[in-house]
This record gives sequence, C-alpha cells and structure tokens, in this order.
Amino acid sequence: MDDRQPADPAEFGIGMRYSLHPASDDFVHVILTAIAEAGDGDGTLDIDTGPVSTYVGATAAPAEPALAGYLLRTVGAAARAMDGGHLVTHVLLSRGCPGEMECTLLDRYALPTPDAVALEPAGLDADVQWSLYPLMDGDSGHGAHLEPIERAIEQAKQSGLEVTPAHFATMLRGDLAQALELVFTTWSEVGRSVPHVVCHLTISIGSPSRTEQHA
Amino acid sequence: MDDRQPADPAEFGIGMRYSLHPASDDFVHVILTAIAEAGDGDGTLDIDTGPVSTYVGATAAPAEPALAGYLLRTVGAAARAMDGGHLVTHVLLSRGCPGEMECTLLDRYALPTPDAVALEPAGLDADVQWSLYPLMDGDSGHGAHLEPIERAIEQAKQSGLEVTPAHFATMLRGDLAQALELVFTTWSEVGRSVPHVVCHLTISIGSPSRTEQHA
Repeated sequence: MDDRQPADPAEFGIGMRYSLHPASDDFVHVILTAIAEAGDGDGTLDIDTGPVSTYVGATAAPAEPALAGYLLRTVGAAARAMDGGHLVTHVLLSRGCPGEMECTLLDRYALPTPDAVALEPAGLDADVQWSLYPLMDGDSGHGAHLEPIERAIEQAKQSGLEVTPAHFATMLRGDLAQALELVFTTWSEVGRSVPHVVCHLTISIGSPSRTEQHA
Repeated sequence: MDDRQPADPAEFGIGMRYSLHPASDDFVHVILTAIAEAGDGDGTLDIDTGPVSTYVGATAAPAEPALAGYLLRTVGAAARAMDGGHLVTHVLLSRGCPGEMECTLLDRYALPTPDAVALEPAGLDADVQWSLYPLMDGDSGHGAHLEPIERAIEQAKQSGLEVTPAHFATMLRGDLAQALELVFTTWSEVGRSVPHVVCHLTISIGSPSRTEQHA
C-alpha cells in the first residue's frame, strides 16, 4: 500500500524562472510595465526578481493554471508595450526539485496530480523553441525517458500548432496562449510518472525575420 | 570486453543552440556584426541560423573547445557592439542526442572522451544562470543523477567565480570566459558517465541593476 501523501506545490517545487528580453532601448520601461500589469499572483504565487531572471513559485493548488496565467499576462503585457516590436522571453519550468540543481526531495511524497491548463487565445503569433526533460526517471528504466517525450510531441502535432523538429529542441509556431497551454500541459503530464521534470522555452514574438514575410 | 567505437562529434550530437538578445533598437545590426565576427567555424562547425536561435554542431574533434571558443567570440563581439549596453545570450548545450527531443542514439557507441576547454579571460563581467541536466542515467540508478551535479557545483565553488544557489538553477558571476570554461568543462565531464547531457545558460552582461551598483 502506498500511504505517501501528495506534496503541496511549494514543497514539491512547482514553479518557473522567466526573463523578458525586449529588443529596445526602452527595455527597462517594457519590463517594469509587464511586471506591474501581471500583478502579484493573488497570494498563490511567490515572486522574486533576481539579477538574471524572476522566480515564480506556486504556493497553493491549482499550481499549473496559476503559473501559466501569470506567464501569459506578463508576456502579453510586454508585447503590448513593445507595440509589434521584437520581444523574446525565456522560461524554465520545473517540478519535483525545489532547490538548486541538486534534487534533495525524498521519496516521502506521492506525485501531485496536476491541474488542467486552459488559456484563451492571446492574438499574438509566437515562435517557441521547446525542450522537455524528464529527470530522475532511473527507477522506471530507459523506456520511461522516451515515452513521455514521444507522447508530448504527438500531443503537439495534434494541437493545431505548426510543429518542426530541430537539433536539440522542437519548434512550435502559433498563438502564444495555445503554445503555452500545450507546454504547460505536457510538462504537467510527464510529472504524473516522472518525479523531476524540467522544460525550457524561448518565446520569440515580432521577429523581423517573421514580420518581413508578412509585409 | 567493450568493443564499441567512440562516436565522432557529429554522430554523437555534440553541439549547441544559442540566441543573442541585445536590449537595443539596433539589435539586428548587433546580431549580424557578432555572427560575422565569429566566423564560419573553420570547417569544424556546422552553423545554421533559424527563426529563434542558431544551431552550432561540432563536426570534428576537438569538439568542446571549438564550441566554447565560437560562443565566446560571438558573445564578445556582440558585447563590444553594444558598447556597455545590456546584452543577454541564451545557450543550450547538448551531447548524446543529435535529433529533436527524442533520443534515438543506440548503445552502439562508446561515450566520446571530451577535449579540455581553456579560455583566456574576456574582460567582460557576466551573470550566468546555469542549469545542468544529466539525462538517460537510468541504467546507473538514482545516485548517478545527483553525483555528477554535486561534483559540478563543487568545481564551480573552487573556480573563483561567485556561486549562488537559486530555485531551479545556480547563479555564477565573474569573467565571461571563466564562466564558459566552467560550464563547458562540467557539461563535458558529466558526459563521461551519462550518455545524454544538456546544459542551459542565460548570460547577462551590462544589466542596469549591476552597472548602477558600480556607478
């Protein structure tokens, strides 16, 4: 019998680090505007801005929708402040390892059940470089490393997003909200069977190489 | 007896994706200048720029020094073009999985021996958000996931760089070349025992939050 209790989001380390990179002389204004518009997380998010990126940790369920909603609000506000200009956002999603790189989480908790993420379309075209890493899959053997990734890529292909394989990553193209819904959902789903799951995103909006194609 | 041959760097997928994010209206000029100054890799690197990032794959040994040198030249050239302005670079290093996220590399190769990376000081202060992920460590059991990371962090602490733990990452501060030497070396070293190793870096130079402290 498994009598382990599910960990709460803070203990389990369900959160993200993100950084905004407006390609603009006015970058400080864009970043401060976006952070102010995104709000303080209504007491369910722990937000701490450092010299390179901002940490956002979920402190209560539902963790995944709160994180996804916060990120979409932040990137959306920064994109509006850029008014069609080029904005890149980098995001690291993590679950199952609250600290530094060293995983000190013991086997005393059952894996938490993720909450579903559903986002309204944002009306923003984005290119997203997507990498998903199941870690601590040792107990399940080699197969466990591949299967959740294959399922995630299959889910991407079914999502309506444009999906292009690349070296070391998968490229997604489509509405920002739809892309975030996919990456948060697949990251959460892998977390049902793998204790530590990390996802890295590079989100590009308004890149000249794209906007020139449409001009 | 292990009669497997070491894979060559291209077969084994030793490479990186990087993207430059100059916080400047003049970002296109900065990026194109940096790419031009970094050169074409002298025939030992396969370079391909996409809509979100540039892929750089090693095609011959010594792979790791060629990649590290190319990245240092590129970031250095972009920083000079920014003339003290704020520049962020994102880097994904990967070895052991040449394709998309799905690892299709079979057990037919012995792990390649990494070449040592040694870089001259760059004279550029950098804040580096550093994440190191050993993947496909299933056969070695749980311990193998932690030990290489613990060794890498210990090596960072001995390096002379300022090392600060953070949620989901380790923050390094110091000379850009010294930080790159550390992250390339530790990534390579983990690759001696773990087939697939990924490292993500967010490199921040000239951030106002740092330069104001020195003003």
